Amino acid sequence: MLKREENELITRVGPGTPMGNTMRRYWMPVALSSELPRPDSDPIRVRLLGEDLVAFRDTNGQVGLVAANCPHRGASLFFGRNEEAGIRCVYHGWKFDATGQCVDMPNEPAESDFRTKVRAVAYPTAEKADLVWAYLGPPEKQPPVPDLEFMRAPQGHTWVSKTFEHCNYLQSMEGGLDTSHSSFLHRNFDREGLANPRVRSTAPRLEVLNTEYGYMYASIRHLPEDKQNFVRIYHYVMPFYQLRAGGSHKTLGNTDGHMWVPIDDDTCWTYNFHCSHTTPISYAEWQAMEHAFGRGIAEDYIPGTFRLKADASNDFGLSRERQRTVNYTGIEGVNTQDFAVQESMGTIYDRTKEHLGSADTAIIQMRRLLLDAVRDVADGGDPIGSHGEGTNVRPAQMYLAEDAKWTETQLRDAIVAKY
Amino acid sequence: MLKREENELITRVGPGTPMGNTMRRYWMPVALSSELPRPDSDPIRVRLLGEDLVAFRDTNGQVGLVAANCPHRGASLFFGRNEEAGIRCVYHGWKFDATGQCVDMPNEPAESDFRTKVRAVAYPTAEKADLVWAYLGPPEKQPPVPDLEFMRAPQGHTWVSKTFEHCNYLQSMEGGLDTSHSSFLHRNFDREGLANPRVRSTAPRLEVLNTEYGYMYASIRHLPEDKQNFVRIYHYVMPFYQLRAGGSHKTLGNTDGHMWVPIDDDTCWTYNFHCSHTTPISYAEWQAMEHAFGRGIAEDYIPGTFRLKADASNDFGLSRERQRTVNYTGIEGVNTQDFAVQESMGTIYDRTKEHLGSADTAIIQMRRLLLDAVRDVADGGDPIGSHGEGTNVRPAQMYLAEDAKWTETQLRDAIVAKY
Amino acid sequence: MLKREENELITRVGPGTPMGNTMRRYWMPVALSSELPRPDSDPIRVRLLGEDLVAFRDTNGQVGLVAANCPHRGASLFFGRNEEAGIRCVYHGWKFDATGQCVDMPNEPAESDFRTKVRAVAYPTAEKADLVWAYLGPPEKQPPVPDLEFMRAPQGHTWVSKTFEHCNYLQSMEGGLDTSHSSFLHRNFDREGLANPRVRSTAPRLEVLNTEYGYMYASIRHLPEDKQNFVRIYHYVMPFYQLRAGGSHKTLGNTDGHMWVPIDDDTCWTYNFHCSHTTPISYAEWQAMEHAFGRGIAEDYIPGTFRLKADASNDFGLSRERQRTVNYTGIEGVNTQDFAVQESMGTIYDRTKEHLGSADTAIIQMRRLLLDAVRDVADGGDPIGSHGEGTNVRPAQMYLAEDAKWTETQLRDAIVAKY
Repeated sequence: MLKREENELITRVGPGTPMGNTMRRYWMPVALSSELPRPDSDPIRVRLLGEDLVAFRDTNGQVGLVAANCPHRGASLFFGRNEEAGIRCVYHGWKFDATGQCVDMPNEPAESDFRTKVRAVAYPTAEKADLVWAYLGPPEKQPPVPDLEFMRAPQGHTWVSKTFEHCNYLQSMEGGLDTSHSSFLHRNFDREGLANPRVRSTAPRLEVLNTEYGYMYASIRHLPEDKQNFVRIYHYVMPFYQLRAGGSHKTLGNTDGHMWVPIDDDTCWTYNFHCSHTTPISYAEWQAMEHAFGRGIAEDYIPGTFRLKADASNDFGLSRERQRTVNYTGIEGVNTQDFAVQESMGTIYDRTKEHLGSADTAIIQMRRLLLDAVRDVADGGDPIGSHGEGTNVRPAQMYLAEDAKWTETQLRDAIVAKY
Repeated sequence: MLKREENELITRVGPGTPMGNTMRRYWMPVALSSELPRPDSDPIRVRLLGEDLVAFRDTNGQVGLVAANCPHRGASLFFGRNEEAGIRCVYHGWKFDATGQCVDMPNEPAESDFRTKVRAVAYPTAEKADLVWAYLGPPEKQPPVPDLEFMRAPQGHTWVSKTFEHCNYLQSMEGGLDTSHSSFLHRNFDREGLANPRVRSTAPRLEVLNTEYGYMYASIRHLPEDKQNFVRIYHYVMPFYQLRAGGSHKTLGNTDGHMWVPIDDDTCWTYNFHCSHTTPISYAEWQAMEHAFGRGIAEDYIPGTFRLKADASNDFGLSRERQRTVNYTGIEGVNTQDFAVQESMGTIYDRTKEHLGSADTAIIQMRRLLLDAVRDVADGGDPIGSHGEGTNVRPAQMYLAEDAKWTETQLRDAIVAKY
Repeated sequence: MLKREENELITRVGPGTPMGNTMRRYWMPVALSSELPRPDSDPIRVRLLGEDLVAFRDTNGQVGLVAANCPHRGASLFFGRNEEAGIRCVYHGWKFDATGQCVDMPNEPAESDFRTKVRAVAYPTAEKADLVWAYLGPPEKQPPVPDLEFMRAPQGHTWVSKTFEHCNYLQSMEGGLDTSHSSFLHRNFDREGLANPRVRSTAPRLEVLNTEYGYMYASIRHLPEDKQNFVRIYHYVMPFYQLRAGGSHKTLGNTDGHMWVPIDDDTCWTYNFHCSHTTPISYAEWQAMEHAFGRGIAEDYIPGTFRLKADASNDFGLSRERQRTVNYTGIEGVNTQDFAVQESMGTIYDRTKEHLGSADTAIIQMRRLLLDAVRDVADGGDPIGSHGEGTNVRPAQMYLAEDAKWTETQLRDAIVAKY
């Protein structure tokens, strides 16, 4: 349970809010690189932390990220012309380069130096892991670009997707860090008889260990008939990353994960990424994997958007008949099942009304870290995890003897980055 | 005319408001029983007095009415599984019985007793007259379930429908208690030449008599050429019932009526009921009667809803040609005509701007009673009519000699319940 | 740049606001006369300065403009019956004449004189230039009906259209008074090589002269190879008229112009008018001219409305391919191009963020005049231009020798009204 003030503090991310100030101290994914496919390709709208922005890839390939409203009289640069190393507002032809500097002002007399005095609000960008990243915080505090292991995997080993979700980022992230829900929300009845530990033991034991980047947590499911524990090590990297072993239960060779990036107080981007530590995977394989997990692939989206067709307006495609006979929710697709429950809480859930149990330990700890970071920033410090502290971790999972302490097994080594 | 404060007081019904507290002291219809047709049938969404709820009929046939948000982390129980005498949240499998008690919590360790400490907000329900009723007030103040005569009629004698209306309950109720509007709003030109007292005398005299359940009012239309009065006795039963003689002018054998139930400040359910005191009526007859009165029957609704297709978005189907030649409004259907004018006032009409005449006496008196009830509840008392005081009344209508005092005729006996 | 308080002051026009009080001291266009085509034709909805009104042409041809809500209980008179020299509310039959006087109240006893005491809010109207005009201010301050030259042109010489725009009136008006944008926003690439001064000299010099009706401004484009200046004289007539020479560059014989009329704080009507000073023009010619200018003609509107199909919901029909090859914006139609940039600023642009250059002189001066008028009205005076001061002006354009002072050429005479 949070107090009302804490709930406000942790969920509001607009300019000038305490959590907004804190989030702005971390680099954040802005768009898929493929949304800006070529030099001088079409500008796109970006909304992040309550700010309306426009991103464009300039003639040199550099991505500019500028405030949507032209500094002259506020027309949106989305309608702008992306040409000759800058974006040009179509209202009066003012042109800005990727740093925000005004480089042409053709409706003013040629002798005027007004141009040199005008800048668009612009944020530094970088590209990594097929994503465009940006830093929206104070320039003097700019940390290095994040470098988690999945971001430096060889080309073709990492794939990323993003999906729009109509709720506050925290709700979505709580759902992702919550290990116990998958036995229910994502249960398929046709798998029920199989040797699936999620079905046989629905209440995993959680161990949370604080780290310098956030925390790691072990989800330990006891399998008494096998005298084993199934142990999964997850990492929560501040402020919005989750790393978990996946995509299949049979291999240690993959990292799966999420990022939950606030668009504004009421909406967020849910990023899914998958990193194969063994072999490169093709786009087709990645799409097949996404589909198998019921995540958003092309046909699930409203064309031209990253929004699922199954949404609150159609009860997320709920079929009561399917709910009786095929799966727990009657909703198709893992992502969609998550979104259904997360959005059904309202866009900002009133956490004064919740009743948390022991299965919610990871969530409680994540909130504590975020609120600590807010306080650290307010006190003039750096928030934890903003300086690449999560660089050297990897998630993993193993079957261990039931009497083994997991930190004293080979699992201890498996959770260190290999690149 | 109301003062601004009075208008706020009488129209706002959310949790914690004075009128909200007052309305919560009465049982209210929640849904048609047919919306929950079988044990373990699909849960439905209910919104009442600004609260989002979920109703389900459990394995034993009992209707549960619980707060929509699961007490764990707030996922909507609408997506829940209605099974084995309880509704189970699909997020983590928590299960609640019809009283709101948590009866299963499978994501917590088996030895935990956390389950016994968690309850969903739940309200007592009852079924009567093919309706599900609920009491949303303080448990220690719970009155008996209402028992108006139409509710205890034999099976097949009473039929009820409900229709969504996009305005505050008070606006809709004012329209219903207002006897003089039907001569205008509902006039059909092809009936105009017939012996219809509504046309010949458009300004009825109103007599209002306060009662222990609200008031009764006599609408007296003088028919000078016949040396008669046409007298109709209506009952207003607190807080939202109207009983009137109907559905045809030829018989004393029927009760028609309405209930106006606040969904929230801006919307309400308009219930129509019809009770035949002589013979049972079939569903087909009831539908034919509804249709003849231009009320909502199946084809008039947006499929799967109780909302009329003719609404503000299409000017309620207004045809100016029909208005010139067929009926007064150019709008088809009695209900739709009512909704057109009531919704056109805005969702909450500013009653500081109205100009009430003598034809509005019944409305003035109804507001007085509601505001008195608000004061009574604020003072710790019971609001009038909440303890079944309207049990023994029946509406009636008669042609009487013009010099007769209606209270001294057989009409006096006709307005007493016969069951 | 405006201060935050100034921006609020100048953009808010609802009842009781300082700018609302000021605007109400001028006559304003309410509708095209053709929207009320015949005596007793259908009433229409009108929204003006944040007030919901209903206009009707009565049996005598007089236009009534009354508050939408019936003074009885607030039903909308839009649903009313326009008959026998008045509009009759369909709820209870109350009838009002074009002055707002209640002339029939059939649901009250015949002997009642309540009728004589009830008035609908009603505003005086006039018709001129195929427009219905109204005055919404205090009766004792009512000025004469405006009489600009285009309004008194012979029948068939003036044509007017109106288009809905989803932003504050000031944004739209700033766009219209802004002479430098047309070289960019409205540029067509296929004309670029032609002798078009707009392309060859994109930074005109502006001279602004205050007048008793607002100001006139000269836009002077130097054409050095011809040793000429191309001088256009525009008039800004308070509070929302622009007059400019047009529609073709070849003739002095026409006046084009705009009126920007606030619907409410967030929306406005953009009126286009065209007045031929030489020959009458047919409706077909006017439509062809509108089409050539890319303005709203019938097929561009959502049927039955004055709203363009190309709007914010479809990015104003933006085609990036067209933007690369055909015109500057990739948007078709002069009006639509204007609306795209003006609406992209948000409905009320935050002018604390703008950076105005010398090309914005006319805009700065217009704001000054409006804020002066607000102060004059607050001080009990009359706002400038409200008493027909703009009656005798005409816009004009000419090529002049580059060393001529325009006020000493025949252009000086060309800017005087001839009717």
